[in-house]
Amino acid sequence: MGDIPDNHPRRASLLARQSLVDAAAEGLLADSAMIAHGRGEAFDYLLSETTSDSAIDAIREVAARLLAAEHPVISVNGNTVVLAGEELIRVAAVVGCPIEVNLYYRTPERVSGLLDRLSEQRDVVAAEASPKGWEGDWQEAVDSVVLFGNSAEHSIPGLNGPRAKCCREGIGQADVVLVPLEDGDRCEALVAAGKQVLVVDLNPLSRTSMMATVTIVDEVSRASSKLLSEVVSGDCLPSQWNNAAALNAALGIISDASVDALSGG
Amino acid sequence: MGDIPDNHPRRASLLARQSLVDAAAEGLLADSAMIAHGRGEAFDYLLSETTSDSAIDAIREVAARLLAAEHPVISVNGNTVVLAGEELIRVAAVVGCPIEVNLYYRTPERVSGLLDRLSEQRDVVAAEASPKGWEGDWQEAVDSVVLFGNSAEHSIPGLNGPRAKCCREGIGQADVVLVPLEDGDRCEALVAAGKQVLVVDLNPLSRTSMMATVTIVDEVSRASSKLLSEVVSGDCLPSQWNNAAALNAALGIISDASVDALSGG
Repeated sequence: MGDIPDNHPRRASLLARQSLVDAAAEGLLADSAMIAHGRGEAFDYLLSETTSDSAIDAIREVAARLLAAEHPVISVNGNTVVLAGEELIRVAAVVGCPIEVNLYYRTPERVSGLLDRLSEQRDVVAAEASPKGWEGDWQEAVDSVVLFGNSAEHSIPGLNGPRAKCCREGIGQADVVLVPLEDGDRCEALVAAGKQVLVVDLNPLSRTSMMATVTIVDEVSRASSKLLSEVVSGDCLPSQWNNAAALNAALGIISDASVDALSGG
Repeated sequence: MGDIPDNHPRRASLLARQSLVDAAAEGLLADSAMIAHGRGEAFDYLLSETTSDSAIDAIREVAARLLAAEHPVISVNGNTVVLAGEELIRVAAVVGCPIEVNLYYRTPERVSGLLDRLSEQRDVVAAEASPKGWEGDWQEAVDSVVLFGNSAEHSIPGLNGPRAKCCREGIGQADVVLVPLEDGDRCEALVAAGKQVLVVDLNPLSRTSMMATVTIVDEVSRASSKLLSEVVSGDCLPSQWNNAAALNAALGIISDASVDALSGG
C-alpha cells in the first residue's frame, strides 16, 4: 500500500487497513474479515471518522456495565485483536476481567495465533506506565488478565457447529459480554441466553446493532481508547439505556452527512 | 463461507463475495480489493441492493456515450473481471470496443492472470446465443473483442509510477472510457486528459463519483446487465448530463433509508 505521509488526513484509517492486510497474510483472519472491515470503513466515512456524542454516551454506559458486572468478559475476534488488542488488554486490566478469543469461523490455528498475538500485546502493555488516573500495580493488573480461547467446552444455546463454541469460564459464565464486531446470530443468541451484550459496530442498521443491549456506533480502536478513559475514571453507573435512541442518533449523522455532502456542507 | 440457501434474500451478494474470496486465493486481486468490495457492500446495503431510477438514467447515458464514441474502451480491474467480466464482454461485443486490463496496483502476474480469465470468459460468451434483440454473427462479434493489458507502453499524464501505465491502443487513444470501480486520482487524470470517464461506483461521495463525467451509482454486475440491454436497444443519444444531480439522487436514497430504518419503514 506504500508509505503513508504523516499528515495524510486519513492516516489512521490507512494504517489500520495495512495492519489487517499484514494479519491476513499471517493467517490470523478469516477470508471475509477484510470485506467486513471495508464495510466498516464505508460507515466510518459517513460518520466523518469521529466518535459522536451519542457514541460517547454509549461508551460511558458500557464502562458502567462492565464495572458493575459480576462476571464481565471481553470477547475478541481477529479484526478486534489486530485493531484494538492492546487497548482492550488495558481495559481488561482496569476492569479485572478475562479476554476470550472467540471466532465465528473457528479454527484451532487462528485461535492459537490470536492468543499468541494477545500474549505479546499483554507483555508490551505490562511494561508500560499505568494509564493516567489509575492507581495500583499496573504490571500485576495486566499480568492478571487471563486469556481464554483454546478450550471451548461450552456451547452458546441456540447455535450449532463451531460458531456455538465458547469457554465455560469466559463467555459461558459471563453476565456481561463486551464483544466488538459480533455477528448478528451470535449477538441474538447471547442476548437470549440472558447476558448483557455490549457491542461496537459501525453499521447502525446491522442486526448486531439492533439486537445488542448497548451498541457503540464507532470504530473499534477509537472506541476502545475512550472506553479505557471511562473505566479508569469509573464514575458512572448503569442507566435505563435506550439503545434505539442511540442508533437513531447515528443514523441521523449519516443522513445529515448524505444531505450536506453535495451542498458543500 | 458455507452453502447459501437458494431462497436467501442476500444470495447474490453472498455469491459475489465468495467469487472474490476465491479469486483472491488465486492471486488475481490486490490486497485491498476485498476491503474495497466491503465498502461497496455497505453502500449497496443502504441502497437496498437495487438499481435506482437515477442509476437507470445514468446507465442509459453511458450506453449512449459508448455508442457515440469514436474510440470507446472498457477498462477493467480484478474485482470488475470477477464480478462482471462476462457481461462486459457482451457489452464490448455489441459496442464493438476493446477491453483493457488496467490495474492500480499493477503486477505482470495479475495482469496476465486477469487476461487469461477474460479470455476464458470470452470463449464462454462466444458459445452463447446472441442477446435478445441483437442481430448479427454473435460469435464473430465476441471473438472480435480485443483484450489489451500486457503491453503498457503509454502513460496517463499527471500520474507517476505503475499506476500511470496504460495501453496506447486502449485507454491511450480512447475518447470515452468506461472504467467501473476506478480510483479517484486516476479518474481525475483521465478527465484532465480530455476523455469522457464513465464509472460505476456504489459510493456517491467518493472522489471518483464526483470527478467522473457520468457516474452509475450501482453494483457493477447489476449495472452491467442493464447496460447490455441499453446498448442492444441502442435508442439513446448523449445528453447534457448533470452528474451532480445523479449523485444527489443516490444520496437522497441513502438518507431516506437511514431515516426510515428505525421507524419501521
